[in-house]
This record gives sequence, structure tokens and C-alpha cells, in this order.
Amino acid sequence: MGIEIPAGYRPLDDDSLRRWLSGVAVLAERLGGPSADWTVEEVGDGNLNLVFLVRGATGGVCVKQSLPYVRVVGESWPMPLERTFFEACHLSETAAHVGRLAPALLHYDATLFVLVEELLEPHRVLRGALIAGVRYPDAARAVAEYVAKNGVLSSVLAQPFEKVFDRAAVFAANQALTRVTTELVFADPYREQARNRWSSPQLDDAAASIRHDARLKLAVARLGQAFLTRHDALLHGDLHTGSVMVSASDTRVIDPEFARYGPLGFDLGNFVANLLTAYFSQPGHETRAGERTDYGEWILAQIDLFWRHFVLRYQQLWREQTEGDAYPVTLFEEADGQRALQDERQRAVAALLDDTLGFAGAEIIRRILGFAHNREFEAIPDPDVRARLERRALQLARRLLLEKERFGSIEAVLAAARAVSEYEAEVA
Amino acid sequence: MGIEIPAGYRPLDDDSLRRWLSGVAVLAERLGGPSADWTVEEVGDGNLNLVFLVRGATGGVCVKQSLPYVRVVGESWPMPLERTFFEACHLSETAAHVGRLAPALLHYDATLFVLVEELLEPHRVLRGALIAGVRYPDAARAVAEYVAKNGVLSSVLAQPFEKVFDRAAVFAANQALTRVTTELVFADPYREQARNRWSSPQLDDAAASIRHDARLKLAVARLGQAFLTRHDALLHGDLHTGSVMVSASDTRVIDPEFARYGPLGFDLGNFVANLLTAYFSQPGHETRAGERTDYGEWILAQIDLFWRHFVLRYQQLWREQTEGDAYPVTLFEEADGQRALQDERQRAVAALLDDTLGFAGAEIIRRILGFAHNREFEAIPDPDVRARLERRALQLARRLLLEKERFGSIEAVLAAARAVSEYEAEVA
Repeated sequence: MGIEIPAGYRPLDDDSLRRWLSGVAVLAERLGGPSADWTVEEVGDGNLNLVFLVRGATGGVCVKQSLPYVRVVGESWPMPLERTFFEACHLSETAAHVGRLAPALLHYDATLFVLVEELLEPHRVLRGALIAGVRYPDAARAVAEYVAKNGVLSSVLAQPFEKVFDRAAVFAANQALTRVTTELVFADPYREQARNRWSSPQLDDAAASIRHDARLKLAVARLGQAFLTRHDALLHGDLHTGSVMVSASDTRVIDPEFARYGPLGFDLGNFVANLLTAYFSQPGHETRAGERTDYGEWILAQIDLFWRHFVLRYQQLWREQTEGDAYPVTLFEEADGQRALQDERQRAVAALLDDTLGFAGAEIIRRILGFAHNREFEAIPDPDVRARLERRALQLARRLLLEKERFGSIEAVLAAARAVSEYEAEVA
Repeated sequence: MGIEIPAGYRPLDDDSLRRWLSGVAVLAERLGGPSADWTVEEVGDGNLNLVFLVRGATGGVCVKQSLPYVRVVGESWPMPLERTFFEACHLSETAAHVGRLAPALLHYDATLFVLVEELLEPHRVLRGALIAGVRYPDAARAVAEYVAKNGVLSSVLAQPFEKVFDRAAVFAANQALTRVTTELVFADPYREQARNRWSSPQLDDAAASIRHDARLKLAVARLGQAFLTRHDALLHGDLHTGSVMVSASDTRVIDPEFARYGPLGFDLGNFVANLLTAYFSQPGHETRAGERTDYGEWILAQIDLFWRHFVLRYQQLWREQTEGDAYPVTLFEEADGQRALQDERQRAVAALLDDTLGFAGAEIIRRILGFAHNREFEAIPDPDVRARLERRALQLARRLLLEKERFGSIEAVLAAARAVSEYEAEVA
């Protein structure tokens, strides 16, 4: 089994990468100096692709190339190469909306399925910072700004539907990665599936219990249908803390290869979920008890900040639009029309919170019981400690899915996250 | 101002139609005999296209050709020709689902933008039958069957999302007619717009009141957004009683040129709305008082029948599916999973009723205050009588939009329709 490899495609290595970069004037010029002097570092620690960081005399670039299979599994799980094409489309589509909240796309090669973007230095991956206990106080707000901008500006709130439909039709072809999400997030953790894994035997009971929880499965399936049928905005599609690069003064969202039109709560929920798993994982990274207590609280504060900034900007950006076909401005010019629209924006934001909590619950569960896990838990050396912390996250996830209407605010979610940890600490 | 006419396109007339049909073997054969002996009748009484009925020695065909403008307005309102392409796509896509509930597509010509389908005889248009007071007792059930089948079978309830996305991407290009719906249904009746018209001066107050009703406009705008963003199923897109052909033993849904993926309640609401306007118009077609009272009740009974059959079949068809990515069957194989899914189907149907009532309200309003009116009202000779009956329909429409949660059942809607008529009869 495999996929058809287009003529001309070959995976790049150090040598062929240098030769290829030398042949693309704009890139060779950016790097500067003779290609033999460039440093090439392969850093693809993700699940799917080759990623090279290349540095030259005058600058650097990041080179990302699709492999025709899932890298973390190998050639037994084939995967079409087009994903870098959709990532390049997303980067070029959203550049006008999000500016320097994403890396600049420098080049795309349709034969090699290679995209080249600016090298982000001295950035690090947000997930790693959260494991190390390092604070980047601007990150959550920047990601909120990114989601709010893409959420409004790519949608019929801001644009004539014709533009939105044309763009959505392009991303509707990004099916291989949509298939991954459909299976890995919305189905696999809730059924027997060989590629599922979890902290075993510690969480065997939790995994079994979730596979037999009809109400929970229904809540997840309803979100799965929404993911496939609601085309509100151009999503990043994989907005976890590993898709965010941070420095002291700059935050960038990278890796939008799962891009498609979908419900905005999916992106919001993914980011919130990954901050929550970072929070729950903190005791596992302590070298002495209580060492990470404050840092855990800081993470919860970032979730609060993320949500508040998103809500503020989403409503502001929507209010500034005049070209969208949804809620056409010509219908709401009078004072009571303006008030009605303001109420509607608040209703929309409440509905987004509801979606966000549901999608966050599904994301947490799949990261603990499904195929692709989060490093903040994986890096905890003691399996009993890890499983205990994962169990806390699962408890909250279940509540997010089954009782999301009861929360009604992000503070209530943070209080519930604290309560799960404290309750278990007491009974332990 | 105009649109680009592709090379080779020309509007057909009697003579060129005969020549063209003679050159398409399958059509000439179906008609039989020499082309000079065929009868050709141009019957396009709709708003947009040329429609010819052609009969020969051994059979007949119906020929539909796009014009590069809106026929009812003229060349001052240009309109791309592609609409027959999307109609042909819909007919060929849905043939497998709905079988003989739609006409068979016999031929499509991409240069002339001509589609040829089977000639429906001795059918008449349902709207005309409703004006004439003639009963076709199978029609409502057949249309319900049509909507239920397309609703489930074209969706991710029944199909892998890849197939649905590929098909939706094709119909996402049907933008000229989606623009018509977006403007004429969801915006124009609620703002000053030269092409709006209504029974004036009788309804001047009602038209002005609706233009200044912020709550009502918000309810309509919310539906407009749903129309553009929710891609649940392949819609007919224009399912009024003029798109249904009936005979004593057969019902067919024609004219799916507005086809696109959208919320199923849009089709359901359109059909319900047009039965409701037929109901409200009945006193205007009486030659003696009370003559149409029973017939009006019969129309309400058809709405009841339509909704009940739809609900039954939608749930049945969903239950029979095993290939859909939404609510994957592998998650719900146990008894409590089956029960949970059954509850979910009822929840889905309740949400569809909600959508249906809202879209029905918007359709009624636009048919009375917007550009395109319904003949059941237009054909009433006394303008005061017509306006009085239109006002009744507007009253119900407003309640459908603003109080749709309160209805909760189709019977409650029918009771409200009766009450609007009776209350006004009392105070008159």
C-alpha cells in the first residue's frame, strides 16, 4: 500500500537542499554567501514532515517538506503530499489579516511540495516553554488576536460570500488531514482501535469507561458533525501549543497545514485544551513539591487572558466590517439596529464559548487516550504520576463535554480545573 | 453593463431548436418522426429562463436554456448562464437518491447552456392547482420524501466527508443564484430597495414597520448567516410550489438551479411557506363566501402531512446509514448507544423544525414585500382583498421568525395560521 509519488518529487537531504536553495535566487540571496558555508539543521520533531532550519551569512530560512507517509509511523501510513500546498495557501491567504502573527511565506515549490518561510529566531516552541516553566506573557494575547482576526476577516461577516466560497472550495480539497482529524479526534478514542495508546495499566479503566459512555460519545459526535458541516471561518486546524513560536517580544502561529473552513470553536478549543493539559502536567515537572504551583496558576491566567482578548477583538473586528454578506450593515443603521447587533455579537460569543469548551474536551481526551499525545505528559518520567495527572485532565474534559452549558464563563472552567486538582489532592 | 457571452452560445428559437434537437441522436430518437412535425411550445413563465416543451411522434422532451439576463426584468439585470449547469449537476447527483421524484436528465449542452429532461405529462404545476382549488393528495408526502432523501443521502450522515466536500466544492461555484437568494430573501425586504414592491398603499405601513423592526431583521440576518455557513445537505434551493409538478398519480420536483449545500431547513421552510401563502390566499379565489373554507383546511392538512412524513423518513433514512462520517456507527453499537442516537435524531428534527419556521417566515415576507411575488396573491383581482390576505400571512410570518421556539410542533403553526384568519375575520 502507498500513494502515487508525482514525478520530480524526492525527499530533500542536506546536500540536495543546498543545491535546491542555491537555485532559487530570492532564497539564496536571503541566505547569502556560498552554499557550502550554510548550516543546515533537520528539526522535524512533529508527526508528519521534514523541517530544515538553514542559516547563511546574511539570513536564514525554514524549509518544510511533506513526506508521502506519516513520519512518526513510517511508510505503513501513507499520506498525500499536498499538505504543504494547503499550508502555503493558508499562509498567503491570512497574511493580510494577521500580519506578523504568522511567519512570512517566502516560496512554495509545487513539485517538491516544499514551502519556505522566514526563520523565526530566537523563538522557541510554546509547548516546550510551558514544560520548562518559562513565562511568555504576550503569547496568549497574540494567539487570541490571531484567531479573532482569522475568525472574522476570513468569514462572511467581513467578506462577500463569493470570495469566501471560492476560498473554501480550495481548502475543501485538504482531505487527507481532515480525515486524520475526523478519525483521531472524533472517533478513535471512543472505540477499539489499534493505534490508540494510553498510560497502561493505570488508565485502562478510564479508557474503557469512555468507550462505553454513550452520552459522552454523542456529545463528541455532535461536535464531529459540526466540524464537518459548519463553515464559519478559515481555521488553522491544529492550533495546539506546539504550533506557536514565542520569543520575549514576538509570537507567531505556525504549521496551518490542517487548514480548512470550519467552526471557529475548533481552533479556540484546541488552544484552550493544550493550555489545560500544560496546567495539569505541572506537578509532574516539579523537582520539589509545590515548585510549579504558581506557574500552574499563571497558565490558568493565560487561558483567561486568551479568552477575554479573543472576545473583545472578535466583537470589535466584526463591528468594523461593512462588506460582509452576513448581518448586512444596511439593515442595522438605526440606533436600535445597532443595539440588536451588539446583543447578537454577545450571543455569538456565548455560543463560541460553548463550542470551545466542547472541542477542548474532545482535544484533551484524544491527547491522552488516542494516537497523538502531548509532550507535557509524555515527558513525565514516573508513569504513576503521569497517569494521575492525566486522569485529572480527563475528569475536566468529561465535564467540558457533558456540562458545557453549565459553565457559562471561562472563569468557571478555570475554577473547575483547580477543583479537580485540589479534590484529588485531598482524597489522595 | 452585461456579462460575457461564451462563443457558440445563442438563445434558441423554434427553428434553431428543431435543428439542434435533430443533431442529438438520443433526443431525436426519443421524439421520433421528422423534426418539422414536432410541436414546440415555449412556456417559460418563470423569472429566468427559456423553457420549451417539444412533442414528437413517439415522445416528448422539455428543453431549458439559460438567458444571459433575468428574463422577467430584461437585459438590465444580467445573470451568468451557468445556472443550467448546476441544475444538471443536481439532477444527475440526486437521481440515485430520489429516483422518479425528479425528472430524468436526458442531455446537457455546455455550449448552449441547455438541459433536456423528460417531458412530464399530464402534470401541472402545484401552485396552479392550489390556486384552482384542486387536490393532489400525494403531493405533500412526495415532496417530503424528496427532501428527506436529499437531506440524509447527500450529507455526511450517509457519506464519507470526502465525497460530500468534493460535491459541495462544485456547487460552491453556483454564486449568481446564491447572490439572488442572499439579496432577495435575506436583505432587500428589510431595507429601501427600488426593486421591492408590495400592495400599495394598503401595505405601506406593514412594509415600513418591517424595515424598522430591529428584532425581526436580526432574526432574518441570523438565518441568512446560517444559509451561507451551514453546509448540511445538498439543497434544491428554490423549493416553492411552482417547482413541483403533479398529476393524479405522480409528483416531481423540478428546477433545482439554485442548488448548493446549505441548511436543510431552507428547503423545508420554503415549501411550508408556499403552502401557507396558498392557504392565506384562498378567500381571494372564492366566487361565493366560504367556498374555499374546506380547501384551505385541506392545505393545512397537507402541511401537517408534509412535516410528519419528512420527520419519519429523515429519521428512518439516517438510521439505515453505515458509511457516514457524522455519528459514526462504530461508536453507537451498544443498546444505550442506539438509544442515545435515537434521542439525537429527535433533537435534530426539533432543530430542523425551528429552522423551518424561521426560513418559512422569511420566505413569506419576501414574497409579499420583496421583488418576486407569488401568483396565488397576484391573481386576486381586488387589491383590497389581496392586501388583507397578504397582511394575515405577514402576521404569521412575523410570529414564525420571532417566536419560533414557542411553536414546538407543526400543529401549533397550523393553529396559529387559523387564528390569524379568524381573529381578523372577527374584528373586520
